[in-house]
Amino acid sequence: MEVKTIEWLDGKVRWLNTLMLPHEEVYEETTHFERVAIAIERLEIRGAPAIGVAAAFGVALAASNYRGSNVDDFKSFLLNVVSRFSRTRPTAVNLFWALDRVKSLIVNHVGSVDELKDRLVKEAIKIYEEDIEVNKRIGVNGLKYIDDGDVILTHCNAGALATAGYGTALGVIRAAWHSGKRIEVIATETRPILQGARLTVWELRKEGIPVKLITDNMVGYVMSRGLVSKVIVGADRVLLSGHVINKIGTYTVAVLAFRHSIPFLVAAPKSTIDLRTKVDEVVIEERNPDEVRYVLGKTLITLPDVEVINPSFDITPPELVSAVITEDMVVERPVDINLPKALNMSLR
Amino acid sequence: MEVKTIEWLDGKVRWLNTLMLPHEEVYEETTHFERVAIAIERLEIRGAPAIGVAAAFGVALAASNYRGSNVDDFKSFLLNVVSRFSRTRPTAVNLFWALDRVKSLIVNHVGSVDELKDRLVKEAIKIYEEDIEVNKRIGVNGLKYIDDGDVILTHCNAGALATAGYGTALGVIRAAWHSGKRIEVIATETRPILQGARLTVWELRKEGIPVKLITDNMVGYVMSRGLVSKVIVGADRVLLSGHVINKIGTYTVAVLAFRHSIPFLVAAPKSTIDLRTKVDEVVIEERNPDEVRYVLGKTLITLPDVEVINPSFDITPPELVSAVITEDMVVERPVDINLPKALNMSLR
Repeated sequence: MEVKTIEWLDGKVRWLNTLMLPHEEVYEETTHFERVAIAIERLEIRGAPAIGVAAAFGVALAASNYRGSNVDDFKSFLLNVVSRFSRTRPTAVNLFWALDRVKSLIVNHVGSVDELKDRLVKEAIKIYEEDIEVNKRIGVNGLKYIDDGDVILTHCNAGALATAGYGTALGVIRAAWHSGKRIEVIATETRPILQGARLTVWELRKEGIPVKLITDNMVGYVMSRGLVSKVIVGADRVLLSGHVINKIGTYTVAVLAFRHSIPFLVAAPKSTIDLRTKVDEVVIEERNPDEVRYVLGKTLITLPDVEVINPSFDITPPELVSAVITEDMVVERPVDINLPKALNMSLR
Repeated sequence: MEVKTIEWLDGKVRWLNTLMLPHEEVYEETTHFERVAIAIERLEIRGAPAIGVAAAFGVALAASNYRGSNVDDFKSFLLNVVSRFSRTRPTAVNLFWALDRVKSLIVNHVGSVDELKDRLVKEAIKIYEEDIEVNKRIGVNGLKYIDDGDVILTHCNAGALATAGYGTALGVIRAAWHSGKRIEVIATETRPILQGARLTVWELRKEGIPVKLITDNMVGYVMSRGLVSKVIVGADRVLLSGHVINKIGTYTVAVLAFRHSIPFLVAAPKSTIDLRTKVDEVVIEERNPDEVRYVLGKTLITLPDVEVINPSFDITPPELVSAVITEDMVVERPVDINLPKALNMSLR
């Protein structure tokens, strides 16, 4: 069964509360936009693409339930709603990208209140469908890298639970599975937040794709025993230099894959490619040390005041990357070929 | 303050209950050997050298409290006690090594009950003192590898809490610290059992040695940012081929250290060197999957029935090892020099 992370259901928004996973599968439902905003703030909905879709659905909800017929009043109400959503997760790039699309519709609208309501609902559904479509195309483009019998190691959760559905890294795994390839997945637990243990395991199990869980420090072991044939991960950002910025631990996996000559694949939408930033300009955000000191925010595993290093992501250099798989193209061996040229060509 | 993991106190055995660390520092005390056996079984006392010492103390306790004067009865009682201890942790090599020393004293004793009591207490104290002495010599031998200003990454706990005191990898760190070198330590948390987060952090803090905690998947990140200058770990076994068998995750750290040209040091007593086993004969023990599914045995982090791979250790090949530091000698670059010859020379 495919996971429905978030859906528009005839004037309601329905989403899976990822905070309760994997222990409880709780779907939330609302007709009020404010509840959607709170769901983003509380991380019930997480993952940049999923947040963008949720915000667009939120604005569509606000529009649908509006009682009034003056278009100017309606527009000013809607712009307040957009502003409300823009404050939910101030660093999520996809959130602003989705809200900009919606905002431009509002500002440029000529016509009745009902026509604008209709257009906003359609635009939100389009953003949702596009995200799934992009992921499915990434899946198709990645298919050729996955062989029958592969055991694929993945880190963190770049799955349906981080997108409108289907996922990027897990999208490739899904595509391979549904094409009839017999594959297995090894999921790293992904400390400190445990996205692998909590989300990837749950999501793959849900679709019947075989999955085994390991701790992050077992990656070297499973590779040295010949238990892994491919690695696939998502990306928060891919630089033009070919550097891949992704969840902390990705670089460690990449170095080990390189030593064992295991293909290291990155699956990410083109919207992830950062045309401007140079690798030495990348700022590595340090997160709350309590994420390391406590497990799941409740179980203290060390001295409560021990000093901690807690970077949220790391940088994998292009020489460790076998291919970057996007919805449009696949860039193989970004260190050898001219990645800027390849990307510029199709991005500009 | 130095940690007293286990001590003989005038007819009593006193030990630090490591199960309660780091949240509570609970010392247990008993005059009855059975309580010591239970402490080993419950893992209140862990680490191969510490277990060997505890068993010797346990037999000494049993002897001290014996009420009787017939030497043959006394010997047969003592051999039962030895047998009781040999069943506590059937795979601990140091346990049998310590018990063999004690047993041979019992079997070969000629003289009175009181004389045997006296000899057993003295032998137990000798085993204890030898263990600390060996660790201190490892510390001294390792000193030359540690420079002022070093940041030393260590995995798991090869410290006072795994030995009679002082520790092996942490023994080198202690020796450097007490010699006045300004060093800092980065401890990996060491999933699944979290020996780094629970024990290493506590032990170093206790002595005022600066320590920071990271999750296991951050090793690549801290090395790539130039935050680590040396790595030092202990070993469960070192093969004549130079392969190092140690806590799961050690190999991952070694591969990353090699990529970043960071010295990878192994500190281990000569008793750890395995003269017989070939690397392809090493059996990697799989432990209980619930260790991965639960944190600290209580917090479920994934689906309760997910398949798990849970090897207790991994194998680091000699080409990744900069030096093996023992109490007698240091073998540098075991892959380049003839390690078997070097070790045979001094071991036989």
